[in-house]
Amino acid sequence: MAAFDLAQHPHRRFNPLTGEWLLVSPHRALRPWQGQQEAPDRSQRPTYDPTCYLCPGNTRANGAVNSAYTGTFVFDNDFAALTPDAPTGTVEQGGLLRAEAESGVGRVICFSPRHDLTLPEMSVEAIRGVVDVWAEQFAELGARPDINYVQIFENKGAVMGCSNPHPHGQIWAQRTVPTDPAKETVQQLAHFQQHGRTLLADYLAIELKEQQRVVLENEHWVVLVPFWAAWPFETLVLPRRAVQDVTQLTETERDALADAMRRLTIRYDNLFQTSFPYSAGLHQRPTDGAAHPEWHLHMHFYPPLLRSATVRKFMVGYELLGSPQRDITPEYAAQRLRELPEIHYKQAQP
Amino acid sequence: MAAFDLAQHPHRRFNPLTGEWLLVSPHRALRPWQGQQEAPDRSQRPTYDPTCYLCPGNTRANGAVNSAYTGTFVFDNDFAALTPDAPTGTVEQGGLLRAEAESGVGRVICFSPRHDLTLPEMSVEAIRGVVDVWAEQFAELGARPDINYVQIFENKGAVMGCSNPHPHGQIWAQRTVPTDPAKETVQQLAHFQQHGRTLLADYLAIELKEQQRVVLENEHWVVLVPFWAAWPFETLVLPRRAVQDVTQLTETERDALADAMRRLTIRYDNLFQTSFPYSAGLHQRPTDGAAHPEWHLHMHFYPPLLRSATVRKFMVGYELLGSPQRDITPEYAAQRLRELPEIHYKQAQP
Ligand SMILES: O=P(O)(O)O[C@H]1O[C@H](CO)[C@@H](O)[C@H](O)[C@H]1O
Ligand SMILES: O=P(O)(O)O[C@H]1O[C@H](CO)[C@@H](O)[C@H](O)[C@H]1O
Repeated sequence: MAAFDLAQHPHRRFNPLTGEWLLVSPHRALRPWQGQQEAPDRSQRPTYDPTCYLCPGNTRANGAVNSAYTGTFVFDNDFAALTPDAPTGTVEQGGLLRAEAESGVGRVICFSPRHDLTLPEMSVEAIRGVVDVWAEQFAELGARPDINYVQIFENKGAVMGCSNPHPHGQIWAQRTVPTDPAKETVQQLAHFQQHGRTLLADYLAIELKEQQRVVLENEHWVVLVPFWAAWPFETLVLPRRAVQDVTQLTETERDALADAMRRLTIRYDNLFQTSFPYSAGLHQRPTDGAAHPEWHLHMHFYPPLLRSATVRKFMVGYELLGSPQRDITPEYAAQRLRELPEIHYKQAQP
Repeated sequence: MAAFDLAQHPHRRFNPLTGEWLLVSPHRALRPWQGQQEAPDRSQRPTYDPTCYLCPGNTRANGAVNSAYTGTFVFDNDFAALTPDAPTGTVEQGGLLRAEAESGVGRVICFSPRHDLTLPEMSVEAIRGVVDVWAEQFAELGARPDINYVQIFENKGAVMGCSNPHPHGQIWAQRTVPTDPAKETVQQLAHFQQHGRTLLADYLAIELKEQQRVVLENEHWVVLVPFWAAWPFETLVLPRRAVQDVTQLTETERDALADAMRRLTIRYDNLFQTSFPYSAGLHQRPTDGAAHPEWHLHMHFYPPLLRSATVRKFMVGYELLGSPQRDITPEYAAQRLRELPEIHYKQAQP
């Protein structure tokens, strides 16, 4: 019998950040696809769209008017899932029906006044402006006694539920720590208590030695396809220095994050020569007043595309009922991303 | 300040089957939707399609020929994610890179020879035939020493990654217990050890008293929108008797399951007058040789549609990074489903 080979044979991998397993079926990458195709985003947009509720100076659905902003622009989400003034209370029956009131803040961050851009098409300086807004927002919201977790994220592309192509992200900040960061806290804390180093610092050291899952590096950041990636081209953006949150990044670390994000998202767009959809976001320490030395700030990119601009991975039956599942290996995905140029295809040739 | 009201105010709910929380934002149901629209499935299909690889008598991609089946038909998946003869082995580095070989079996179950039908359009007798196949397959696969969990499921609709509209489901059976059933085992065991009754028996008793989340009942089964539902019209199909797996169901319980599934899926189709997409599947005891008295067989339906045949719920940025989130309440969803007729809209009028 052939020796066990991660590149060829079905196996499970462990995600140490969540403590959960996923299924990898490398041999299945060959299966033909006859199902639903996505519409690739190759739209040409104007720099300003008078009907866009995120463009500078425009009036939103609720009558508010956007400032004539020239960099980034933050406002309270007009349809926020969380509100600061929600009534408090709990419901409990037999330990099986359990609910508790939740409060919080929802904000929208416009990345650029330019309606036609996306992160990979923005300059490092402009992306650095986004990083600074993240830090400001984290500082402001995290300092509030009613906010114990600040989730910063971006949904990019219609296939990821994004309803406006104007480059923007969101913040959902709330009283409790949501499920995923709560799992990551448990896992990181266990590692830190045992080893005195963060889980992700130890993980990064292994990946830097092996190099096979590393996509790109700069002086302060490493982008890699994690060993336990669930989405086909999922990546993890890691600072070399174990910081707990974005406010702790130095000036040069912020510039370097902007550089890493730009280079990563250009590679993503180049992969299938399309505006590459994803959901991405920062995972940071809870803002509950504790020190959280176990927390190592990182950014997850979860992109749905699998084989082309039109064929995505569906996380459906088995994935919803059993566990996440992937076909192409993380090592292969990293190699594909590594081989791509860092000049955006739109700028590359006539 | 208004009293805390689950129907109006943002809150978290606890899922006792997984031990995890989700966010509910009832006030957000009013937000306008300007994003991606799905293509509703209102296709008229022939009863037999010579190009369908699931129709009776047809040749599949790998050259195998389907039998001229008249009821159900089971075959090994030609592109299975799991294979029985996979090499064994493990990979481990620093406790952070962990993988182990996985083996198993993938099968396809055709529900009917009729290419044009779906479960809600089949007779109770025909659906009962599907239940019997589930029981046969669970018995056969579960008895194998190399199979410790049998996941039976259906992806229905292109939006759920289903690449062939011929009515069919799948089985992925494997050596290890996947993430979700593993969580449910932990949670159900803790409840059983504390109370001597299954978690879902105690939960069902509460729901039958309250009635507000119950969608339909028959002598042996109850269909309800669970208090912790994440998908807009998610349901849980529960046997009144705590059985561990589908082989333990009596003849009348099997007939009654077919009746409950038919009535539920008709209501689903009637909701937006479309062939309602979903992923659904059975959760049952692991087949690891232990007795598992804590396990209470149940069926989950996870449908993506939210407001119409074309507007779905996206589980994206916040959901992938934070926790599942829903807008309409489970109570409202149950009411909507309860109010619908149990005659399929296609049969209802000329
Ligand atoms: O096996 P199928 O129907 O080809 O594929 C579908 O169901 C599988 C099991 O949920 C998923 O892994 C695939 O992403 C999905 O497209
Ligand atoms: O807030 P938006 O962009 O309107 O909505 C989008 O992102 C949210 C947060 O991930 C999701 O809950 C919605 O399902 C999605 O459509």
